[in-house]
Amino acid sequence: MKNNQFAIRPTDFKTQLSELREIQFLDQDNESETDTIKLWKSFLSKSFLEAQTSSVLEEKLQTYMATSDMNLDEYLDSATNVTVEAFYNVALQLLKFNPDVDFSFDAPLAAMKKIQLLVADHQKDTFTTDELKSAWYWLLATHNKTGQTFIDSLATKGYFTRFYGKINKPMLFNGKTLPVFDPHQLIREVVYVESPQDSDHDGKRDLLKAEILRPKETENGLKVPVLYTASPYNQGTNDETGEKLTHDVNVPLKHKQPNDLKYSDIEYNDPKTPLPKARNINGQTKHAEETFSRESSYTMNDYFLARGFAVIYMAGIGTKDSDGLRTTGDPEETTSTISIIKWLTGQLPAFTNRTDNIQITAWWSNQKVAMTGRSYLGTLATAAATTGVTGLKTVISEAAISSWYDYYRDGGLVIAPGGFPGEDADVLAEETFSRRLQPGDFHKIKDEWNEQIKDIYQGEDRNSGDYNTFWDARNYHKNFKNITADVFMVHGLNDWNVKPRNVERLWNGIKHNGVTQKIILHQGQHIYINAFRSIDYSDIINLWLTHELLGVDNHAKEIIPNVIVQDNTKPETWTAYKDWASAENEQVNYNLSADKLVTEKSPKATHTFTDQLPENVFNLYRDHNDTWEHDLIATDTKLANNQLTFKTDALADDLTINGKTTVNLKVSSNENIGLLSFQLIDYGKAKRLNVSPSILGKNALAGTYDWREDDLREFTAGKETPFKMITKGHLNLQNRENNYKVDELKPNVFYNVSVELQPTFYKLLKGHQLGLIVYATDFGMTVRGNQNIEYTVQLDDSSLIVPTHTN
Amino acid sequence: MKNNQFAIRPTDFKTQLSELREIQFLDQDNESETDTIKLWKSFLSKSFLEAQTSSVLEEKLQTYMATSDMNLDEYLDSATNVTVEAFYNVALQLLKFNPDVDFSFDAPLAAMKKIQLLVADHQKDTFTTDELKSAWYWLLATHNKTGQTFIDSLATKGYFTRFYGKINKPMLFNGKTLPVFDPHQLIREVVYVESPQDSDHDGKRDLLKAEILRPKETENGLKVPVLYTASPYNQGTNDETGEKLTHDVNVPLKHKQPNDLKYSDIEYNDPKTPLPKARNINGQTKHAEETFSRESSYTMNDYFLARGFAVIYMAGIGTKDSDGLRTTGDPEETTSTISIIKWLTGQLPAFTNRTDNIQITAWWSNQKVAMTGRSYLGTLATAAATTGVTGLKTVISEAAISSWYDYYRDGGLVIAPGGFPGEDADVLAEETFSRRLQPGDFHKIKDEWNEQIKDIYQGEDRNSGDYNTFWDARNYHKNFKNITADVFMVHGLNDWNVKPRNVERLWNGIKHNGVTQKIILHQGQHIYINAFRSIDYSDIINLWLTHELLGVDNHAKEIIPNVIVQDNTKPETWTAYKDWASAENEQVNYNLSADKLVTEKSPKATHTFTDQLPENVFNLYRDHNDTWEHDLIATDTKLANNQLTFKTDALADDLTINGKTTVNLKVSSNENIGLLSFQLIDYGKAKRLNVSPSILGKNALAGTYDWREDDLREFTAGKETPFKMITKGHLNLQNRENNYKVDELKPNVFYNVSVELQPTFYKLLKGHQLGLIVYATDFGMTVRGNQNIEYTVQLDDSSLIVPTHTN
Repeated sequence: MKNNQFAIRPTDFKTQLSELREIQFLDQDNESETDTIKLWKSFLSKSFLEAQTSSVLEEKLQTYMATSDMNLDEYLDSATNVTVEAFYNVALQLLKFNPDVDFSFDAPLAAMKKIQLLVADHQKDTFTTDELKSAWYWLLATHNKTGQTFIDSLATKGYFTRFYGKINKPMLFNGKTLPVFDPHQLIREVVYVESPQDSDHDGKRDLLKAEILRPKETENGLKVPVLYTASPYNQGTNDETGEKLTHDVNVPLKHKQPNDLKYSDIEYNDPKTPLPKARNINGQTKHAEETFSRESSYTMNDYFLARGFAVIYMAGIGTKDSDGLRTTGDPEETTSTISIIKWLTGQLPAFTNRTDNIQITAWWSNQKVAMTGRSYLGTLATAAATTGVTGLKTVISEAAISSWYDYYRDGGLVIAPGGFPGEDADVLAEETFSRRLQPGDFHKIKDEWNEQIKDIYQGEDRNSGDYNTFWDARNYHKNFKNITADVFMVHGLNDWNVKPRNVERLWNGIKHNGVTQKIILHQGQHIYINAFRSIDYSDIINLWLTHELLGVDNHAKEIIPNVIVQDNTKPETWTAYKDWASAENEQVNYNLSADKLVTEKSPKATHTFTDQLPENVFNLYRDHNDTWEHDLIATDTKLANNQLTFKTDALADDLTINGKTTVNLKVSSNENIGLLSFQLIDYGKAKRLNVSPSILGKNALAGTYDWREDDLREFTAGKETPFKMITKGHLNLQNRENNYKVDELKPNVFYNVSVELQPTFYKLLKGHQLGLIVYATDFGMTVRGNQNIEYTVQLDDSSLIVPTHTN
Repeated sequence: MKNNQFAIRPTDFKTQLSELREIQFLDQDNESETDTIKLWKSFLSKSFLEAQTSSVLEEKLQTYMATSDMNLDEYLDSATNVTVEAFYNVALQLLKFNPDVDFSFDAPLAAMKKIQLLVADHQKDTFTTDELKSAWYWLLATHNKTGQTFIDSLATKGYFTRFYGKINKPMLFNGKTLPVFDPHQLIREVVYVESPQDSDHDGKRDLLKAEILRPKETENGLKVPVLYTASPYNQGTNDETGEKLTHDVNVPLKHKQPNDLKYSDIEYNDPKTPLPKARNINGQTKHAEETFSRESSYTMNDYFLARGFAVIYMAGIGTKDSDGLRTTGDPEETTSTISIIKWLTGQLPAFTNRTDNIQITAWWSNQKVAMTGRSYLGTLATAAATTGVTGLKTVISEAAISSWYDYYRDGGLVIAPGGFPGEDADVLAEETFSRRLQPGDFHKIKDEWNEQIKDIYQGEDRNSGDYNTFWDARNYHKNFKNITADVFMVHGLNDWNVKPRNVERLWNGIKHNGVTQKIILHQGQHIYINAFRSIDYSDIINLWLTHELLGVDNHAKEIIPNVIVQDNTKPETWTAYKDWASAENEQVNYNLSADKLVTEKSPKATHTFTDQLPENVFNLYRDHNDTWEHDLIATDTKLANNQLTFKTDALADDLTINGKTTVNLKVSSNENIGLLSFQLIDYGKAKRLNVSPSILGKNALAGTYDWREDDLREFTAGKETPFKMITKGHLNLQNRENNYKVDELKPNVFYNVSVELQPTFYKLLKGHQLGLIVYATDFGMTVRGNQNIEYTVQLDDSSLIVPTHTN
């Protein structure tokens, strides 16, 4: 295996000593020790927490080997010095590496290097006491075989319970917080924030429920920052009624009436609805009246709950125990989302219940907030950031939507999130409308809700697929300029649910805001990465939040690389880069020639394909999208007549695509309608990473001692495959200029179109071929009309522009 | 959905009242209440644990509907009586059922009946106070939509934390224990039991490590029973070195030298090895010297940890921190397994560490033990039961092996556990030999271990596949007669890892022991069923153990049906029966005629098939066992020449197979070797249950408040399939008489063979066809020699005997 740690803070020796003292590895009994053997034994004895007597400790020491023929107990009894080799032999065992599999007792340093573990400085083959202290420090900071630093693995064994109840500020090690607050003593309280909106039009400002978990120590003066997760799913979902709204995608593509719209014609403008008066405040209290037992939590938040952070979950307008209606991402939802931040910073009131108007303040808050969460949750974090709300120091936006048009539409087409054909903004609104789960509440709002669903359905306009006022209201790009929070992005390069364009626009859209921005691009789909073995994600976020929310000068902004990309060609490999998808990247221009991608000029030629399939084949692909996906790309393609495929020769060198590939095509349809789809393919046999992570250990990652656990995961290499889809794109031929202006499409007339494929970072290995497939119906994403449409491409007037990464 | 509760104890009204008082739903404030509305409100107010003031409570009541147009708060304010309909409308909501999906406010009783929920007795349309108290009692005992009783769902919200530290005996409700002991205050201690064996031959009795979790209240005099899980995996596994030992199964079947062995020739007899002396005891203590942080736990044990039970995990000989060597199920391992039970009952000493010989007794034990666990764990529970050891009151033996020959062999053939071709007793020994994980310990024992692995390899004898002394030592049937513990069995009818024969032999093997025996047969593979929604398994085991270990007269033995079988034709349907696989079941005899199974006499005919495949086809099936499995059964079979298939006409009525089907065949091979495989098939289009459960809710099942969680699961119906394998069997044609005697096989001579297929309980629906496939190489289980062998069956001298279930 290979370890990748990006969150290690360089630390001078003096600071190492003071940290070792604070966490009690150094104390008055051992800090002046001059015998390295005795010093080492004192460190070890503090690590074997299970041993409560010296006999048991000796027995444990006997189970480790210090050299190839001497166990640790014997070594400590007989050696006069701690050799570097003995230290790292034992270190590797403490880190759960196995001599039968991972290393040899003859060469521990070689293994440390190979696995990419931290080795401390040393002048000779044996450690001085100072070197040994430093080596122990770095050992504590090093990741083990199960995805935790050694110090965090000691935490799960109970090392830090000694500090429970005895500490009134966060404790730090190597720039990151430690779990010194008892998670079973957390205070759990509910407040109702009065949000400045009336989204259900009942003449009263919406009250929104928030679930708060904070360390008990806040009752005694500790001020804490907040990790806030805005999750519309958090209070439950309506899977059955949502499912019922799902749209039929086996419908034909329709001709659209050409128009001459300009952006100003469809631009969304705040309707400036008059706002009901705020509630009269009848009193003040410091104590909540409502509690809760088990919140629907995000495991990364759980990890921080013992480390001196509060965590808040809020589901927002239209969810269980809150007022309002679901809107799927419009400005009302953004207002709802940031209301809790305004409460935390004293800008909005909250009440202890929905009736009595007794105000409760966030008197325990240090007024610094980070938002966390994936998908819709990360989306709302991004939305919140675009308001520039005070107190929001950073958002960690994972797999987040940055414009809802880029989630449900593309190029004038209805394009489903991968795996969810027929889903749309109305379906998602219904699914998250958890007020339905409380029949007594739903009874009051039923008619209003039915109207709302109709309005969303009208607004989303599945008939045209065009960008319109509805989508403009849900486009966060417009307000990127207002972002003042630092932004930490995480996205999967194989995420076909929230497609990579969403994060690329955010990444490139805030470069002039003057905020710090970081991004991690992994090889997964639509997943969390906080429990992976090969990257220290929790540590990175710990370093980041310790800086952002606790104001600790730990150099997080300098230490964490701006861009970290997981390599797609080998497991457990993550690389730091300066930028991603920069407009300044070099490009390779390919021309289309017969079935080839070539760099020389191509001869005059046209190629034609038809979209229609025999009914039985169509039905097969309709019901089995994965079979279609395979057959489309397979070289012995069953879809030869239904696509055009162009391939480069075998690559003479590795080729890394970095950014947005563009397809320029001169193309005609034999009808007055047309849609085109594109896939970029890596052809070449290779064992590729599975896009879904494997579970290495069920419940193997605990946040701390006797606390919630997560499964340890990793992207592992699958069986050899002959090809892999790199990226894709779509276009309605009636939207050649942009997404809102509808163009005429005359049958059999050639038009020039230019399509930007989803951005990526992808390495094709030497000997592989880069391929482009041009086709029409995308069984996983577009409508599936099985219409008799023929497309003809003028090859010599078409090209493929590939942005590359050159260093 | 449909609920199936088997663990409800009929309870008279007086007992209901006293239980409601004990758990504090009735108290001096409400027990004399004559107004049913006020009484109901008092029950409700005790259930909304999140509401800490009356305002919040009112708000919560407003979110429930009592009738189709009045919410619960309004109803309580205006009604003068509690109608049965209003009560069950609210009950359904409290149980998390949804009026949009599961029920209508106009007919709650119809929904209660349909979902199979408990409805209390009532004389009229409104409840009297007594009826209401009783209705509340039964509501508490009823399962909700997420697989828990209402009272357990209140527990997860914190209802019982009020009793923490204030109680000195288990608290019961409806015959089952409640979570009144704080799981975060558990005492965790390690002891080393001195087992009367020296399995690593170092001249000292083996010390075996046990991890104990017991309620803190034991320190103050509470005596508790023990749930003991013997798990060889518990201290870690050697996946890599185990994998290396895995055997090649792409080898030819070999001719075996005929012999004339009798059972007495191969019978295992205790070698009566002299035993080293017991250690001298140097002192006594009540307190352990070693603790542990997170045991590798079984979620069902976790559920009991807050309910007044201790839990012990022990991995046994040859595992980390213990002495000895792994043996894969022989009498040494049984001795190891029961040593902790002997300690718990004062028959063996344990020590606080491995060095000082300070004895520690189980002074907190009530001397009653149950064993739990699945697969190897359940196997050791069965093994322990066969010793008749004192103190072992019951074993809950899930998916357990009852003879290791039936796990790794069948009919004179090497037959792999499904999904693990090439695994064998030596591989499993290596995988579980966790002493390897401690290099300091492994260093001492390495040579001894290498010898042991060689010995196991010799003993298992992959060359013959015959039953021999090695397997006889690992056959627990021989000692079934000694079982005095009650036995609770659980097995999957689709478990092709530990095949159903293992449980059937146990079920039918102890019928004359005078013990109580229960069995649950589910439609899954090799899985746990303690987190399923449609059956109250945890409640059943709670009722069972409350009786067995706490001695409570709760009628568990009468209430729990002897046999519960999950229906294979529809979801969420579990049925009680009196017996399974009884020798007295009626039979249907089918004859083989051309490609049919017929009940009339069949004409004289022979049919032939060959086992050999073209190399490319062989390689495909070798690498993709699932493709082979499909192609073997598919009607347009690609394997038509490599098998014989016989089908009944479409069945005129449902046919339920109950027990062991027998195939009688007159057959010849054209070589002096031969193996036959058989599958019984259900042909007919149907939506069948998936054999792997679906996750309905991640972490949705908590054992109690702020405690460990499990995923809620269920077997859901998959897509329509045209057929399903019911059961299978195998035979080496040289083992026609039995598994140890090798017969001559002359080429082209016909022999009579009789093969018992794996037992099952399977319903074929009317209109379906029962099919028998006769073939040779089983790509998932047998060796795969791709040899040129032809088999000929004399159809008119062959038959299929199907045991049926007739009521």
